[in-house]
Amino acid sequence: MQQYTSLNLLQFLLHEVHRVEELFQYQPFAHVDSEQVALLFDAAKSFADRDLYPFFKEMDEQPVHYEGKGVVWSHPQLQKIIRQGAEQGWISGSASFEHGGLQLPETVFNAAHHIFQAANNGAVGYLLLTAGAARLITNFGSAEQVAAYIPKMFDGSWQGTMALTEPQAGSSLSDITTAATPTDKGFYRIKGQKIFISGGQHLACDNFVHLTLARIEGAPPGTKGISLFIVPKMRPEADGSLVYNDVFCAGDYQKLGQRAYVTTHLMFGENDDCRGWLVGEPHRGLQYMFQMMNEARISVGQVAASVSMAAYYASLQYAEERPQGRVIGERDPLKPSAYIIRHPDVQRMLLTQKAIVEGTMSLVTECYKLFDLVHATSGEERQRHWLLLEILTPIVKVYATEQGNRSTSLAIQVLGGYGYTMDFPVQQYYRDLRIMSLYEGTTGIQSLDLLGRKVTMENGQALQLLTAAISATIAEAAESDVLKPSADALQTEVRRVGTALKHLAQYAQAGDAERYLADATVFMEMAGYVVIAWQWLKMAVAAERCLAAEDFKKQTRAFYEGKVHTMQFFFRYELPHAAACAKTLESEGQLTGLDDFKALR
Amino acid sequence: MQQYTSLNLLQFLLHEVHRVEELFQYQPFAHVDSEQVALLFDAAKSFADRDLYPFFKEMDEQPVHYEGKGVVWSHPQLQKIIRQGAEQGWISGSASFEHGGLQLPETVFNAAHHIFQAANNGAVGYLLLTAGAARLITNFGSAEQVAAYIPKMFDGSWQGTMALTEPQAGSSLSDITTAATPTDKGFYRIKGQKIFISGGQHLACDNFVHLTLARIEGAPPGTKGISLFIVPKMRPEADGSLVYNDVFCAGDYQKLGQRAYVTTHLMFGENDDCRGWLVGEPHRGLQYMFQMMNEARISVGQVAASVSMAAYYASLQYAEERPQGRVIGERDPLKPSAYIIRHPDVQRMLLTQKAIVEGTMSLVTECYKLFDLVHATSGEERQRHWLLLEILTPIVKVYATEQGNRSTSLAIQVLGGYGYTMDFPVQQYYRDLRIMSLYEGTTGIQSLDLLGRKVTMENGQALQLLTAAISATIAEAAESDVLKPSADALQTEVRRVGTALKHLAQYAQAGDAERYLADATVFMEMAGYVVIAWQWLKMAVAAERCLAAEDFKKQTRAFYEGKVHTMQFFFRYELPHAAACAKTLESEGQLTGLDDFKALR
Repeated sequence: MQQYTSLNLLQFLLHEVHRVEELFQYQPFAHVDSEQVALLFDAAKSFADRDLYPFFKEMDEQPVHYEGKGVVWSHPQLQKIIRQGAEQGWISGSASFEHGGLQLPETVFNAAHHIFQAANNGAVGYLLLTAGAARLITNFGSAEQVAAYIPKMFDGSWQGTMALTEPQAGSSLSDITTAATPTDKGFYRIKGQKIFISGGQHLACDNFVHLTLARIEGAPPGTKGISLFIVPKMRPEADGSLVYNDVFCAGDYQKLGQRAYVTTHLMFGENDDCRGWLVGEPHRGLQYMFQMMNEARISVGQVAASVSMAAYYASLQYAEERPQGRVIGERDPLKPSAYIIRHPDVQRMLLTQKAIVEGTMSLVTECYKLFDLVHATSGEERQRHWLLLEILTPIVKVYATEQGNRSTSLAIQVLGGYGYTMDFPVQQYYRDLRIMSLYEGTTGIQSLDLLGRKVTMENGQALQLLTAAISATIAEAAESDVLKPSADALQTEVRRVGTALKHLAQYAQAGDAERYLADATVFMEMAGYVVIAWQWLKMAVAAERCLAAEDFKKQTRAFYEGKVHTMQFFFRYELPHAAACAKTLESEGQLTGLDDFKALR
Repeated sequence: MQQYTSLNLLQFLLHEVHRVEELFQYQPFAHVDSEQVALLFDAAKSFADRDLYPFFKEMDEQPVHYEGKGVVWSHPQLQKIIRQGAEQGWISGSASFEHGGLQLPETVFNAAHHIFQAANNGAVGYLLLTAGAARLITNFGSAEQVAAYIPKMFDGSWQGTMALTEPQAGSSLSDITTAATPTDKGFYRIKGQKIFISGGQHLACDNFVHLTLARIEGAPPGTKGISLFIVPKMRPEADGSLVYNDVFCAGDYQKLGQRAYVTTHLMFGENDDCRGWLVGEPHRGLQYMFQMMNEARISVGQVAASVSMAAYYASLQYAEERPQGRVIGERDPLKPSAYIIRHPDVQRMLLTQKAIVEGTMSLVTECYKLFDLVHATSGEERQRHWLLLEILTPIVKVYATEQGNRSTSLAIQVLGGYGYTMDFPVQQYYRDLRIMSLYEGTTGIQSLDLLGRKVTMENGQALQLLTAAISATIAEAAESDVLKPSADALQTEVRRVGTALKHLAQYAQAGDAERYLADATVFMEMAGYVVIAWQWLKMAVAAERCLAAEDFKKQTRAFYEGKVHTMQFFFRYELPHAAACAKTLESEGQLTGLDDFKALR
């Protein structure tokens, strides 16, 4: 079987770089230990090897699709994946004991999901989707709601979804119009349409729990008038029976990739018999939903890194096995060919991928550890973790997805013409990945969030915390002769971010919010280079420590050398582009956001 | 019908920027005038509107495919495209009157093909493929060969192909093993396999003329022992009848995109009855083939620009018609939505595409004009044009294809989630384009060609000519207050290229060719930014001249303003990355091309 990820890398990231053990000191995770984590990863790998990876290509070739009359066909393997995945705890794993979960840290639970995502990203998305929806219910729903929905969601028989997008609104949630009319019977009547609903309907589950954003009659306009409802496809009656709840699947979208992951168009209340149950308080729906959205954004970052990881290993294996051409300087055509991995440009393409995917996985691990700390701590400490997570969330989402597109494209390039054929998996990774900079908030939306909200939030505290965290790594690295030049280089880039922000701040201070935000995506690109450089320096510090001590109990010398080498590669080949972004950001005047677009024709 | 290109842009590039009229002063093109060019473009547009664009999606959904027993099914429309295209002169248009052509400059002929490529790139590739193969025969073949093949190729009944790649050799042509055994009957017996043969067989033509590289028994090893043969699928007998020539199509490749363009696997001489006719002299095959390859490389650059152009217009139209969200600062959710084209980040994505596709089309036009000048002039003048074309060829191929991948990806991004669905064409452009940095020499191969051959050829004369050409544009631009800052910025980047090359030259001088070439692809990226900046400055000079004179006879004010605006955009958002490449290039030591790859695992 093709290698699609590395458990060694996961162990290195969790234990040596991000010290997941620190989490086990907190009460909710006191029952977890490192040995258990290793066993979990082995179990996850077995599940992925047996039930996920072997169906990766087939579930793409036989995509989920609408068959008419509300029915969406899905591959028979999907039911097995969802039911067995549920049984093994891959939906409920991070939920509390109280709700029937395993109370695993998200850091550990999601590292296991990384293995699934690298094996078959489209097929396994259903599990985390249900997990996220369930968490929304356990966090904000009533005890009755928890009792009515959670057990069925956790055993894999009911699918959770998030129903936000509407045809006329797209990314603009303030414009949604799905209506919720109160009744005196404890429910609301729901009427409206939702599009792009991932997991929205398929053959593998008996019921669908749509967490739906709608407007209660008379609610204030805009985002402040949006409420969250549980709207099941089949509503559970008091006697345990299920009654059709007038949620009709009107079609699906056939897509470039992720063809195992269904995307539907739903009609609520066409026959005026669709009931929804309010979650939490009225008009606070978007706030609740953003909890799920924020988690989903980190998760999308991880999926992108996982798919890129699988593409990396596919291209690495090909490069190791394919002889072609000769080393430059070897002019004797009778000498045997070199393996293409020997060619500098192939190594460049492989190292670029490795730098992107492992750097992203390190940032993902950083984020999940912060997520766990937010939930395990309180007061000022909690606030610090939360602020840092807030500023990193849009960055991990964008870096992973935008650079993931580039990384999977490089995987194709390593294979040459073969990479373009359907006989090799790299083209599927490339297709699958392309959605990820679109869903859960496009790159443009994330960038506005970073520069418009996160950089300025709490008087810039989130940014200060991030800078402090990077500085701490720089200080550690500066103690090593090997790492000192890289530490200095990162210090320069951190200062450069500050200068660029100071330039932009002029516009904000002058009240020109649009100009301040016009190049938010360029700022995001710059932030991505700097934050991933930080993660690489962090990895290099951990690796160099073992190299200096000749401590190869956990990993081999080559593994650690590879980390230091890839860090140096990232700093040489990728990080210089941060300065290019700064140059763009610091330009005067404005070339976008013009009222007159005639010049575009 | 969706707009897929702009005739105004073509006219601007040909007449106002690159002064195609200058060509009409030379004898071979004395019969051409600008009015005729305009009529040709109109005819090309009609053909594309009627027979190409309407089949773009359908020919993707019903791809050419192998049906077994040597038969490759192709869409019925393909025959119409090839036969009608031939009849209208779109195969023979640039061939001489003597051979039955229209003797059009390549600059004009290929500009018409740009329209076809933007309309349906996969379906129209067959025409230029035959044209290129025919030119190889008219240039290097015998009078008998010309008489036997050219008329059938020009009337569209026989398809020309180039049969180079073999399973074991890939990009490494020195390793090809297809054997040619001399006979005393004027032909050779051919035996071997070829893969990835574009246009290799289909239902739309009666015969296939494979221009095949093979080794004559006893030939020297490596590239110096390769000869070129005409190997038809059906060989024409003296009486005009066709006899099967033992060229068997053993299968095809199903691909990520370009699904209207067949890619086959051919077996020559399985029954020892495959005859080939030597073209020109023995052992000079690669040299002949490189003529076709070099033309094909410019052509691939143009196809990539054309596909990106179509994607640009698809996303532009969507952005103009799709209301969503509000302008930043507008906090009233009851105000109507803005069209997304109003959002700065959408304008940034559109301008990035426009900068890439129009900049590339300008460089393509530059190259074709040089191509025509090489053929119309002689002596030292010819040599100058030839050297400049030699150095620009790998650059246009790589810039167009690598940045084309990015440009079509941005087109998807503009459409949001809809861009990922099969309901919109942008995903097809994205898929179609991905092959182009692979075939006709990968990006890595082109980059070695640029830095290893073209930069150093004739004592660096090609590079000096390029620098002189760029300097001439800078001098022109510096006369305008509007363009002066951009002229200065480009001057800085030209110097930066010189400095980077000086750094690399150390390694070459020390005899370390591998280190000199290790970052060839990074140098290529840098060269691309600088050369496209030059093209934009050239366009801006032409536009600014009309703006200053208020001369809007040829184009509107908005058109010219758009050119100056996009030039400024390119200089602000793209060109700064040249300095980042320089930083990489000027680093000491070496991180790629290592003998030990353990660290990659």
